Amino acid sequence: MSIYWNRRTKNLCPYIPGEQPRDRQFIKLNTNENPYPPSPKAIEAIKKAADDRLRLYPDPECTAFREAVAARYAVRPEQVFAGNGSDEVLGFAFGAFFADKAGTEAEPVLFPDITYSFYPVYAKLWDIPCRTIPLANDFSINTNDYTISSGGVATCGGVVLPNPNAPTGMAIPLDDIVSLAKYLEQQQKVFILDEAYSAFSNAGCSAILHIAQHPNLLIVHTLSKSASLAGLRAGFAIGSEDLIEGLRRIRDSFNSYTLDRLALAGAAAAIADTAYYDTISRRIIATRERVTESLHKLGCLVLPSAANFVFMQAPVSGADFFAALRERGILVRHFNKERIADFLRVTIGTDEEMDTFLAACEDIIRKYSRRGTKITKDTKGNNE
Amino acid sequence: MSIYWNRRTKNLCPYIPGEQPRDRQFIKLNTNENPYPPSPKAIEAIKKAADDRLRLYPDPECTAFREAVAARYAVRPEQVFAGNGSDEVLGFAFGAFFADKAGTEAEPVLFPDITYSFYPVYAKLWDIPCRTIPLANDFSINTNDYTISSGGVATCGGVVLPNPNAPTGMAIPLDDIVSLAKYLEQQQKVFILDEAYSAFSNAGCSAILHIAQHPNLLIVHTLSKSASLAGLRAGFAIGSEDLIEGLRRIRDSFNSYTLDRLALAGAAAAIADTAYYDTISRRIIATRERVTESLHKLGCLVLPSAANFVFMQAPVSGADFFAALRERGILVRHFNKERIADFLRVTIGTDEEMDTFLAACEDIIRKYSRRGTKITKDTKGNNE
Repeated sequence: MSIYWNRRTKNLCPYIPGEQPRDRQFIKLNTNENPYPPSPKAIEAIKKAADDRLRLYPDPECTAFREAVAARYAVRPEQVFAGNGSDEVLGFAFGAFFADKAGTEAEPVLFPDITYSFYPVYAKLWDIPCRTIPLANDFSINTNDYTISSGGVATCGGVVLPNPNAPTGMAIPLDDIVSLAKYLEQQQKVFILDEAYSAFSNAGCSAILHIAQHPNLLIVHTLSKSASLAGLRAGFAIGSEDLIEGLRRIRDSFNSYTLDRLALAGAAAAIADTAYYDTISRRIIATRERVTESLHKLGCLVLPSAANFVFMQAPVSGADFFAALRERGILVRHFNKERIADFLRVTIGTDEEMDTFLAACEDIIRKYSRRGTKITKDTKGNNE
Repeated sequence: MSIYWNRRTKNLCPYIPGEQPRDRQFIKLNTNENPYPPSPKAIEAIKKAADDRLRLYPDPECTAFREAVAARYAVRPEQVFAGNGSDEVLGFAFGAFFADKAGTEAEPVLFPDITYSFYPVYAKLWDIPCRTIPLANDFSINTNDYTISSGGVATCGGVVLPNPNAPTGMAIPLDDIVSLAKYLEQQQKVFILDEAYSAFSNAGCSAILHIAQHPNLLIVHTLSKSASLAGLRAGFAIGSEDLIEGLRRIRDSFNSYTLDRLALAGAAAAIADTAYYDTISRRIIATRERVTESLHKLGCLVLPSAANFVFMQAPVSGADFFAALRERGILVRHFNKERIADFLRVTIGTDEEMDTFLAACEDIIRKYSRRGTKITKDTKGNNE
């Protein structure tokens, strides 16, 4: 602890992103990146923007990007906020809409106990009280647990839900989302819906079509996953003009130009290339279904995923399985946390990458089974 | 005011950036952009990074960029923090080092009354008490005004100074900066030194050489001005490892990857191309000196500038002069604020642009002089 840090800095528990290895070639299935390249049109647009105009500030209104989002999702540009990745959008949203502990009105913000681990970090940054709601026994989210009327909670200062959830990959039925939005609107509370992975849902779980009915609903998307542009840092939120204006107020009190000219150009072009991204998303979904089936056959439990990753439990402890995969040049994500310490989150890569992964799984499971000692009996189930 | 905004959002006074016109071609002297293109090596590096690797997250450590900064300024990479523009770095620094009103230890942060107008905005965002210290009569900054020992102030929670100052363009002597850093170190207070424009100082006013002696000193630079990359959004801070770690804690509680792959590549290449940027900075300095002399001859007051802009007062009211220039297709910056309402901040453009600007000034001053009524007697001085 430095004498120069203030109280906030001393108290923070910063987020730890997945490893970005620099020294060794891995099959990288640890940060839910897309295995397929971004749209050639996005790359082309970026190259075109890489010229002497970089001496000039970018458009602080992010007009072209916001208009592309508006056109694709049939909303108005005034309903769109553009950010430097969806993490930044979420960071602004926590700062804009939830009451901090210094305020008299502070009620806890609610989110699941097992979810994107950045949510509690944002709460800490802005000094917002929060309460985590346990997932059900089958790892699903029951939206009734988030309402006072159903007896789920006593107080609620707002709700943050990812759909599908990470790291479980499980989707919440759209009807449940809409009901919760309606309930929270009556309570005058903001509902942040993080749809980072919604493009990989077979059923199409996005609530964007319902945005006009719920002025309290903010839907957050990223271009890092389905648009295969994690390296470009672009995300956006769709919501009522009130919510969008709130995000702008925070942004313009922090950094007027969070997206550079290259990101703006690439993001606008990517959003417009729907056909390309639909194709690669379908390919990832097909690979995911195949991988899930193969893992079942190996005796693994795999939660039903609507995302570009699977959350799996092998008949080997999570830490051992993680280490054994790493030894074989395969990086996945392991969270050393209650209830999920024996699970691994595995990003869906190309078919070739996943074949290598499955062969490694088979090999590891066989070796550990022979040794015997490492097998934990109660993790041998599957989800059928 | 929306029912969905929290107390913070309702109280904010967001920063208003200079106009970025989209509808009409202007000679743009309003946002201190560099009139010369960025280094061809930076553009080349960006184009090389614009490929399929954009599907992968950028390096969250910003290693290549930080190493380039370290090499150029003879510091260690651990003393460098990379940000999405210096605005973001400043935003993090206010959040990391200054006590907010909820804390018991909160003393006001000090900065000049006439300075970069984002400083009070950051203070409001993080709920930090602040106090503005008036510039001297000649618009200079007297660093004794910032110390308790000299009777300047009663309490001090930290100091933020730009060197050179904006919008005045005036530099603070390096000896004064070093003395203040030493004093504040004894007080265990952080000193943020914003050197956005230091490359345009004839004398070379940067305090980076003194960084090792002052663990409380954070020096902030931007690539938007001297490196002609306003459109790329890159900035950095140099300071002790304690301060750099504090900035990282805030960043990693907000957005793990604030710089995209293209910005990282371009920024590293730009920082390394010292020869190119020295040449264009010298050219801008020469143009500035010539423009200052011509404005003196037109009866204008021009503060002595060490930046890539001049702060000038014509024998015509500031608002009228601004409007008359705009009519002639020339955009400058006017701050409708006490003491400086009759001044304009004019970015130094190319020689051709400045010739057009000077001709317009001459024309406007002649016309207003003939009409008579618009001339304010007390603004006819000059600074010699």
